Amino acid sequence: MEKQSIKLGLMGFGTVGTGVVRIIQAHQDDLQKQTGLGIEIAKILVQDAEKSRHISSMNSLLTTDPAELLDNPDIEVIVEVIGGIHPAKEYILAALERGKHVVTANKDLMALHGAEILNKAQEKGCDVFYEASVAGGIPILRALVEGFSSDRITKMMGIVNGTTNYILSKMSQEGADYSDVLKEAQALGYAEANPTSDVEGFDAARKMAILATLGFRVPMKLEDVDVKGISSVSKEDIAYGKQLGYEIKLLGLARRDGEAIEVSVQPTMVPKSHPLASVNGVFNAVYVHGEAVGETMFYGPGAGELPTATAVVSDLVTVVKNRKLGVNGRGMVAPYKEKILKDDSEKLSKYFLRIVVTDKRGVLAQITQLLADKNISLEQVIQQPYNNGEAEIIMVTHLSAKSDMDGVIAYMEQMDIVSKIESCYRVEGGDK
Amino acid sequence: MEKQSIKLGLMGFGTVGTGVVRIIQAHQDDLQKQTGLGIEIAKILVQDAEKSRHISSMNSLLTTDPAELLDNPDIEVIVEVIGGIHPAKEYILAALERGKHVVTANKDLMALHGAEILNKAQEKGCDVFYEASVAGGIPILRALVEGFSSDRITKMMGIVNGTTNYILSKMSQEGADYSDVLKEAQALGYAEANPTSDVEGFDAARKMAILATLGFRVPMKLEDVDVKGISSVSKEDIAYGKQLGYEIKLLGLARRDGEAIEVSVQPTMVPKSHPLASVNGVFNAVYVHGEAVGETMFYGPGAGELPTATAVVSDLVTVVKNRKLGVNGRGMVAPYKEKILKDDSEKLSKYFLRIVVTDKRGVLAQITQLLADKNISLEQVIQQPYNNGEAEIIMVTHLSAKSDMDGVIAYMEQMDIVSKIESCYRVEGGDK
Repeated sequence: MEKQSIKLGLMGFGTVGTGVVRIIQAHQDDLQKQTGLGIEIAKILVQDAEKSRHISSMNSLLTTDPAELLDNPDIEVIVEVIGGIHPAKEYILAALERGKHVVTANKDLMALHGAEILNKAQEKGCDVFYEASVAGGIPILRALVEGFSSDRITKMMGIVNGTTNYILSKMSQEGADYSDVLKEAQALGYAEANPTSDVEGFDAARKMAILATLGFRVPMKLEDVDVKGISSVSKEDIAYGKQLGYEIKLLGLARRDGEAIEVSVQPTMVPKSHPLASVNGVFNAVYVHGEAVGETMFYGPGAGELPTATAVVSDLVTVVKNRKLGVNGRGMVAPYKEKILKDDSEKLSKYFLRIVVTDKRGVLAQITQLLADKNISLEQVIQQPYNNGEAEIIMVTHLSAKSDMDGVIAYMEQMDIVSKIESCYRVEGGDK
Repeated sequence: MEKQSIKLGLMGFGTVGTGVVRIIQAHQDDLQKQTGLGIEIAKILVQDAEKSRHISSMNSLLTTDPAELLDNPDIEVIVEVIGGIHPAKEYILAALERGKHVVTANKDLMALHGAEILNKAQEKGCDVFYEASVAGGIPILRALVEGFSSDRITKMMGIVNGTTNYILSKMSQEGADYSDVLKEAQALGYAEANPTSDVEGFDAARKMAILATLGFRVPMKLEDVDVKGISSVSKEDIAYGKQLGYEIKLLGLARRDGEAIEVSVQPTMVPKSHPLASVNGVFNAVYVHGEAVGETMFYGPGAGELPTATAVVSDLVTVVKNRKLGVNGRGMVAPYKEKILKDDSEKLSKYFLRIVVTDKRGVLAQITQLLADKNISLEQVIQQPYNNGEAEIIMVTHLSAKSDMDGVIAYMEQMDIVSKIESCYRVEGGDK
């Protein structure tokens, strides 16, 4: 190894941490040629130094004491792949306080405390990069910050959670039930034992908050994101969607009209002709619409040891290059625009609505009249027999305000002729 | 406008040049906030200063004399959107000689003389960026240079020519003939009056040479690229392809096995399940496979005034940021690996072959025996009646060497029982 090298402290030695070590070891020569500096792993913070590891050559570097990384002045960069808020946040802030650069894959932390961390970095002249926090192996944050630096982004849509995309893809391909596919995904390791964060959309919401902050340059917060998960998506919904030309995806939406912004994560009917509709399995994709560039999409693995580690090490390369050039701390532009959130009357979408009604003469007329009274016009309507003298009505609306749609549903819940509101989904399209 | 600004000289005021001016004018504030410097267009080089322009406010800046840009010491950046080799090359070299940074959209120039230009830039400590030269609005060069800096790219496949993709998509969607669709594309302005550069694959070959140079870090030359265009693709080929589960795309392929590389552009049968198969119309897409990251794909507009201009201005933002930080001339890593090209016996692909034979007993046996003798095994075979006592044989092979396939075709051309070799295409797949 060259004498000239930069020392890094790795926090966390699980899946992603192991991948980071593997890539640094395998590509030492290439990295050296690109950056002019070797990258040396100086210390690895673990919870249990005695646990057996995939890479035993690193055993001498393991420590359970964060001070061995944070208080070592030779360590210039901290790579944080522990995950979760605490103690990752405290470690990262302590590292920045001591002038160390940070690369992290921590979406929870960046979604919740990104502003605090970026401000501390700016104050200390340090780099903080977090490409791996959104859509694993897809270099989407760089694209937003640099590739589209001259454009104004109006809309981002993301399939940014592999677990839910795997489940919905399987349900669609096999006509299977949610609960069966979830069990299968858990058995395969694609879903966790407690799947709430994934299936209820919280994980995707964190990533959308990060994307919206970077893409719109406003300080989005996690609580600004409307979230609905996939646990109530039925195979019937998927089948009806297909019949009408849609695939159901858990879609993150970040949309700007003028200066007003909305961000949501919800199961969405995506037209089959849309490039997002054919993103299947654990793959992720982020669709970006810019005023000048028009439609673009970035597709790739959303997770996994090596894809995620690739994003971490690419960030590390940027830190090392910056260090060599003496320009650390200038990478990420802090959000500088005022955050103006749409209210529900400004959130316009098409909707898919499926209800069960008493099968009596005039029911369809009553329902459609109600919608018309609430400013909602229909693009498609199907009525068909259900069971026990009931009928099922499936409707796709034209662009409608979320507030109007919520009003209609609240009203329908009180109507005698409506026995069940089976489902209501946003339908992608019609807004461009 | 701020007093602190950077002056640029624009060379060329056609479609892309107009887009560049529009974006700089519209986004002046955003650009200023990102870079800390205003961007001022100081001079525009045109062929005819009297011609009427879309943007008349720029009339006072027009000149037909390149020296007014090149010899003006206040102009720090040249944006070249003239296109073609001469005089663009001389202007760019002269600009670099005088210490000016360069942003160009010129794929012809970068494919043919990229090394010379990058070396001159390195010598003079200047930036040269050319994101717009490949796949217009898709920030693919940044992704290769930065996003995957820690990975080893093994395969890139690109739909990088919008004209041919439009033609093939239309032929596929409408079952139309090549010549009819070409005429329509010409009428719509998607194809030029002389379409040779597009339809014979030369334009795509230039882009693949640029991608392979960056992705594999070896100095690829245009003549290293095997090129075959789409003018002989028939609607029958497309129909047979569909029947077997493929779409025909003009696909650029850059593939590395160990250290040996192959780069080609040719009509290729792409499995319908592959994300590239559903890239239609004038859209472009580049698929990148990295050892660590796995499969990724970047999709977007390949051309057009504003998409291309977005890429140019994003490069310009990078130049201005670098200028502010005092780190120009370090952006692009010059190719540092030795170029080792595969010979045809090392180029392994599946092939689709369609031939017309005399319809006699034993003909199929003769053909399949010939293939077996030449080391080619078959995955699929269809024989069906043609006309006048002839039969048509359609075959898809397993992975086979290009040299073996070329040998088989040369041999078949001499066989009495083979009356016509209708078509032979590479089939994507089977190599990973």
